[in-house]
Amino acid sequence: MATVEELKLRVRELENELIKCKQKRCAEKDAGGSQKHYRQRIEKMSAEVVDSNPYSRLMALKRMGIVEDYERIRSFSVAVVGVGGVGSVTAEMLTRCGIGKLILFDYDKVELANMNRLFFQPHQAGLSKVEAAEHTLRSINPDVSFETHNYNITTMDNFTHFMDRISHGGLQEGKPVDLVLSCVDNFEARMAINTACNELGQIWMESGVSENAVSGHIQLIIPGETACFACAPPLVVAANIDEKTLKRDGVCAASLPTTMGVVAGILVQNVLKYLLGFGSVSHYLGYNAMQDFFPTMSMKANPQCDDHYCRKQQEEYKRKEAERPKQEVVVVEEAQVVHEDNEWGIELVSEVTEEELQAASGPKPDLPEGITVAYTIPEKVNAPAGEMVEETEQSLEELMSQMKRM
Amino acid sequence: MATVEELKLRVRELENELIKCKQKRCAEKDAGGSQKHYRQRIEKMSAEVVDSNPYSRLMALKRMGIVEDYERIRSFSVAVVGVGGVGSVTAEMLTRCGIGKLILFDYDKVELANMNRLFFQPHQAGLSKVEAAEHTLRSINPDVSFETHNYNITTMDNFTHFMDRISHGGLQEGKPVDLVLSCVDNFEARMAINTACNELGQIWMESGVSENAVSGHIQLIIPGETACFACAPPLVVAANIDEKTLKRDGVCAASLPTTMGVVAGILVQNVLKYLLGFGSVSHYLGYNAMQDFFPTMSMKANPQCDDHYCRKQQEEYKRKEAERPKQEVVVVEEAQVVHEDNEWGIELVSEVTEEELQAASGPKPDLPEGITVAYTIPEKVNAPAGEMVEETEQSLEELMSQMKRM
Repeated sequence: MATVEELKLRVRELENELIKCKQKRCAEKDAGGSQKHYRQRIEKMSAEVVDSNPYSRLMALKRMGIVEDYERIRSFSVAVVGVGGVGSVTAEMLTRCGIGKLILFDYDKVELANMNRLFFQPHQAGLSKVEAAEHTLRSINPDVSFETHNYNITTMDNFTHFMDRISHGGLQEGKPVDLVLSCVDNFEARMAINTACNELGQIWMESGVSENAVSGHIQLIIPGETACFACAPPLVVAANIDEKTLKRDGVCAASLPTTMGVVAGILVQNVLKYLLGFGSVSHYLGYNAMQDFFPTMSMKANPQCDDHYCRKQQEEYKRKEAERPKQEVVVVEEAQVVHEDNEWGIELVSEVTEEELQAASGPKPDLPEGITVAYTIPEKVNAPAGEMVEETEQSLEELMSQMKRM
Repeated sequence: MATVEELKLRVRELENELIKCKQKRCAEKDAGGSQKHYRQRIEKMSAEVVDSNPYSRLMALKRMGIVEDYERIRSFSVAVVGVGGVGSVTAEMLTRCGIGKLILFDYDKVELANMNRLFFQPHQAGLSKVEAAEHTLRSINPDVSFETHNYNITTMDNFTHFMDRISHGGLQEGKPVDLVLSCVDNFEARMAINTACNELGQIWMESGVSENAVSGHIQLIIPGETACFACAPPLVVAANIDEKTLKRDGVCAASLPTTMGVVAGILVQNVLKYLLGFGSVSHYLGYNAMQDFFPTMSMKANPQCDDHYCRKQQEEYKRKEAERPKQEVVVVEEAQVVHEDNEWGIELVSEVTEEELQAASGPKPDLPEGITVAYTIPEKVNAPAGEMVEETEQSLEELMSQMKRM
């Protein structure tokens, strides 16, 4: 009978073997039968201005006074959850920027139906997304370390493993990743990431694109400091389209390479600003493609959040805030803040059925122009007017179950 | 804490994965270097929701009430001038959207130094950009017609040929293209496109990214109606960075896949909106990556424009306007218009030398927040205060020669 320790050892051995096997496959493919010559690994980033230097235009950011120490990019490990329309481009941008390590999670296969978005190519149809992505990304930049997981993070076992990789997938032995990026397309996966990051105190960024393909957003979530995904209904960008024109018959959502590309671009730009310390890191940035409107905002964590790890992180944050003299993370100016006096009503914008849409009524929360919530508490819940973040928790359970049914 | 049973399960999973990985390695070796299978051409776009349909997510735009007739995309021909960081992604987005025809112009070769931007891959180093792009794009979508020209449009002979292809490169025999996109990185090429489009009355869109990689813009130019590139100094987005930090020693500009991706995304989104008739087509949309700020504006053609074809187009436009009952092109609301009372001073933002930067002084024109001009008339020219578009022409020649020296 094997002991727990022996089994754990065996798991680690097998994981290492698997990674090696995958690396060999990639190396063989690269060399394999092919005239394709990929570039050699580069030991040290150089600013030398020669055609053969893939980092010259990035190192120039130092000379331009934008980034103080660009080489630091190599010390970071980023997890990308969801390697679809936004996640694949996100991973490619980070790879080309020379990120130290990427951990990719997805359980989907490449299909021809994905070809209206950037990154994947028809000859990859049938491959798992993480496998196809790793192969392409490695050939683009062999200096990046890749780790891929072809599973759904929301199942119990996978979630445990996901948590483990977030907490130990850093470039330094046993350290956590530096950032988790949510590029998933459903509520359940977002909630799983939220749960994991709240428990681990892991900073992450959310991204999303609407079902009608003409709006999207990114959001920075610092557990304990900014609103988590359970603190308040998720915010989305209103497309300003007559909702009656939305026809839903259980078929596929629309998507555009443009909207996905813009969302990936503003997401990775925010990642670079956050990791390398330049510019203002946005808490929330929306994109309304119909009007070319980009609303921004900020929202604090909800002291009555349903997620007890979020509340715990808030305590921790308060304690640290009281201790340290000054905050580290530079945050965008809160020119547009959430109005504190709000009433809640149903206001469905995306990921909803026609039926639920018809039930939409009641007052909307007072958010900056162009931003609205993905769902709100129905009036029948009898939510009294009051402080916004306070309000939310009262029927969050109901909201969650409502969302899960979508 | 994992139980023995859970760990045993994990060991089994990993063993299976390892076997699969090894099998795949063998299979791949057997197939060794064999032809990649690209997808077949598709005669008619279908909205059918099956994994094998590359157009299902685009045709869904109709069902979502965004686009009335998506299939029309196949009837359009677009010229992309410059296949670099913005142009290549622009061409890929249009290809994935199923555009009818693309005409690509570039005289550059792919270099490893381009690998910090999307699209090109290391194994393409040394190939001409148009050749490498065509190969990749054709394998992504064989339904698109491609025409490539590996030359510099600014030389006399090439310019004549360029004009010819713009006027006869449409999908219908002998018809002009539907749109020209400028994705070039220098003033001379922009002026060449401007000259050609003014003479031909060809609608085009401009795009640009700053030398420091943290700002960019797109602009729609309708000859005779909106300001052309010679009507007024080109507008750029201020990065709000202390200009003294800009160090220029004749070496390479910085660039980022994020900024380039965002600019390509908003450019192609504007193209889709213009061609397929949805949303508001932006006249000018800027991107300031440091602050996540996206200024918009509009500017009318200058009756005293130096380009006599521009003035001719203005006459033509006035005549047509008087004739037709209503305008066809939907244009973004002019919430922020150019202030009419301006003084001009040197205000150098990009594509300038340190020397010219030092000469910068004098008042700035009163443009919307975040937008400024790439250069202005020096005060010594003694330009009087007055109506903005009127002002410009007084020393446009001088400005042009100034810019040419950059």
